[in-house]
Amino acid sequence: MAVGEAVFPRMSVLDGLRLGTAEAAIKKPGRRDLVVVELPENTAVAGVFTRNAFCAAPVHVARDHLARSAVRYLLINTGNANAGTGEQGMKDAEYCCGALASLVGCAGEAVLPFSTGVIGEPLPVARIEAALPRALESLDDSSEAWQRAGEGILTTDTRPKGATATCQIGGQTVTINGISKGSGMIQPNMATMLGFVVTDAAIESDLLSSLLRETTQVSFNSITVDSDTSTNDACLLMATGRSAQVSSPKEVAAFRAALEEVMVTLAQAVIRDAEGATKFVTLQVEQARTVQEARDVAFTVAHSPLVKTALYASDANWGRILAAVGRAPVDDFDVNAVTIDLGAVRLVEHGGRAADYTEEAGSREMAREDITIRILLGRGESAATVWTSDLSHEYVSINADYRS
Amino acid sequence: MAVGEAVFPRMSVLDGLRLGTAEAAIKKPGRRDLVVVELPENTAVAGVFTRNAFCAAPVHVARDHLARSAVRYLLINTGNANAGTGEQGMKDAEYCCGALASLVGCAGEAVLPFSTGVIGEPLPVARIEAALPRALESLDDSSEAWQRAGEGILTTDTRPKGATATCQIGGQTVTINGISKGSGMIQPNMATMLGFVVTDAAIESDLLSSLLRETTQVSFNSITVDSDTSTNDACLLMATGRSAQVSSPKEVAAFRAALEEVMVTLAQAVIRDAEGATKFVTLQVEQARTVQEARDVAFTVAHSPLVKTALYASDANWGRILAAVGRAPVDDFDVNAVTIDLGAVRLVEHGGRAADYTEEAGSREMAREDITIRILLGRGESAATVWTSDLSHEYVSINADYRS
Repeated sequence: MAVGEAVFPRMSVLDGLRLGTAEAAIKKPGRRDLVVVELPENTAVAGVFTRNAFCAAPVHVARDHLARSAVRYLLINTGNANAGTGEQGMKDAEYCCGALASLVGCAGEAVLPFSTGVIGEPLPVARIEAALPRALESLDDSSEAWQRAGEGILTTDTRPKGATATCQIGGQTVTINGISKGSGMIQPNMATMLGFVVTDAAIESDLLSSLLRETTQVSFNSITVDSDTSTNDACLLMATGRSAQVSSPKEVAAFRAALEEVMVTLAQAVIRDAEGATKFVTLQVEQARTVQEARDVAFTVAHSPLVKTALYASDANWGRILAAVGRAPVDDFDVNAVTIDLGAVRLVEHGGRAADYTEEAGSREMAREDITIRILLGRGESAATVWTSDLSHEYVSINADYRS
Repeated sequence: MAVGEAVFPRMSVLDGLRLGTAEAAIKKPGRRDLVVVELPENTAVAGVFTRNAFCAAPVHVARDHLARSAVRYLLINTGNANAGTGEQGMKDAEYCCGALASLVGCAGEAVLPFSTGVIGEPLPVARIEAALPRALESLDDSSEAWQRAGEGILTTDTRPKGATATCQIGGQTVTINGISKGSGMIQPNMATMLGFVVTDAAIESDLLSSLLRETTQVSFNSITVDSDTSTNDACLLMATGRSAQVSSPKEVAAFRAALEEVMVTLAQAVIRDAEGATKFVTLQVEQARTVQEARDVAFTVAHSPLVKTALYASDANWGRILAAVGRAPVDDFDVNAVTIDLGAVRLVEHGGRAADYTEEAGSREMAREDITIRILLGRGESAATVWTSDLSHEYVSINADYRS
């Protein structure tokens, strides 16, 4: 299941950047499950990684390589997360990096590994190694290569996720292309399951890193399917430097806006393709004392199984939204100041049901695929937006059957 | 659905305490939905109530009456929570207390009101008022009256929940009887949905209150079905004073042990009857730095939809348990020190799968109805136990259909 239609966008070529894929039969045969991304020399790379304490072996290795070396290749597999695999998992991730490095003639630490899939199974390194030559043969810079790479990183996702944007910097067109994956075990904490965003702009490394962190916060760190932060979350922002330099405040602002558009589109695509999703839900919390408070309220509502099942049923059960808001971790909470709107319909005011609310109006809004719940706390000036999905029978089926 | 068999226990008579029920057609006709409990004079009463900021009108009124007056009657309805009902809800709750008071000849504030059911609908006061005489006529002190009262407070619960225990105090037998209800919207915070526990012991009011708070923490505050703290949670502990006085440290210890047995049994009964439950799951977290840390880890695992769906599927998907432990809010978390057992089988040690783990052994444990997950954090001496249920198709069905 997935919400709405999604067309993989037409991606512009980024000079020097190529993507290759192969079928390595990592979990099962007959699907694209191995992706190699080749970066041009001198590409600046910034990364954010999961804060799950049980983070996966490739996360450890990618973080380490990124700190020590320039990056030339990304090696991404699906079907196996190489997480909960202890020391052997670390060796396996290093081994795969080394195998790719020896085929292309670079240092092993110039390769960053990423894995996604089932947790706790040994990584099938022999199958990955055997498929590497085919992935390298297919390296290509076309839009089709981006789409194949987008497909090659999926797990329970039903469709590839891509986004692209351009902006004008110093008279030159700068392009930003990105792909992401993720459908379940989604409450990213500093990253999504996997996101890879590349620009041809030239961006100094500290600036690149802060741009990634800022836009991650309002995109991948603002989505949740099921509150389960993955062991393998990672998001990279890469700048090849073949186009204009981004450095003045005005240039940074223009670039940031385009980057945020790409990041938010990719994050929303994860929610639209969430496991079992039939609804795409925007939670806008306003008039909070702090952004963190607004986020806390939004995530409390977004994680409520009772709100999520009501959304699935298209039932305007506003009492459940009110109950979830009421249990959010907010100090000195005056519920009489709270207002809750469902789309264009006011649900709650003065601590109870809005005076002119009707069940018909509520049901009409709830029947939509795209639903916005706006919660005004009446106690400050801060706001936050979080996106989530509903909780359906299909979500339970997918996750009760995933390993079988 | 519910886990295992449950027999309502044989309750001893508590001198002077009577329970009555009636069919008031509050939500729909043909079911017992109104309960009156009559307490003997001079009964000491302690209460804990929901911390949900949007707490229901009866919670406000019960808290207020309890602070101002001796208590003679409890008036409990199901089918309507009288929550999210603003000023009118407060008036309605007071009105019902007054109606009962005028029939029995006591002050309105000697009545404590409790409601459970759908949020946001006006309380049908006329129907409650009309049914009060029938509830009073049925007042009785028998075990059957306790069971009828247990039935009269249910919502989506499939069976009444009772517990009883005795202890010897100063050569006299002291009895503790209790009933509870709750099946969904369960992560009590200072109380369960509704719990009523009565003893014939004589207990001074401050001691009664601290006994209630202490035993609530390890019973109703240690269960979760779906992380949704209700607007109507309340738990009362009442001491009629007709039997022995509990005051010396030794007497308090004996009484506390019996009380904890009743409270834990009632709390566990809520989980065994959780919405859609097919499993009863005990999460034992040990070797934590603080009890709060142990509780945080236990609740993080207990709330994980991916762990809960794996439990439903009887799938020993230990990677999901590991991932949930890893995202718990624990500082300086060294995952290499963590050990996780599923029943008698070691799942995780040294940051990965236990050396002698086999899928067969894991699946055998996971197939049971009663499952214990033991998580040793390896960083301290504190422990906590939390009980939860699984996440099934039936849970989604119940909550997608609840209002229809």
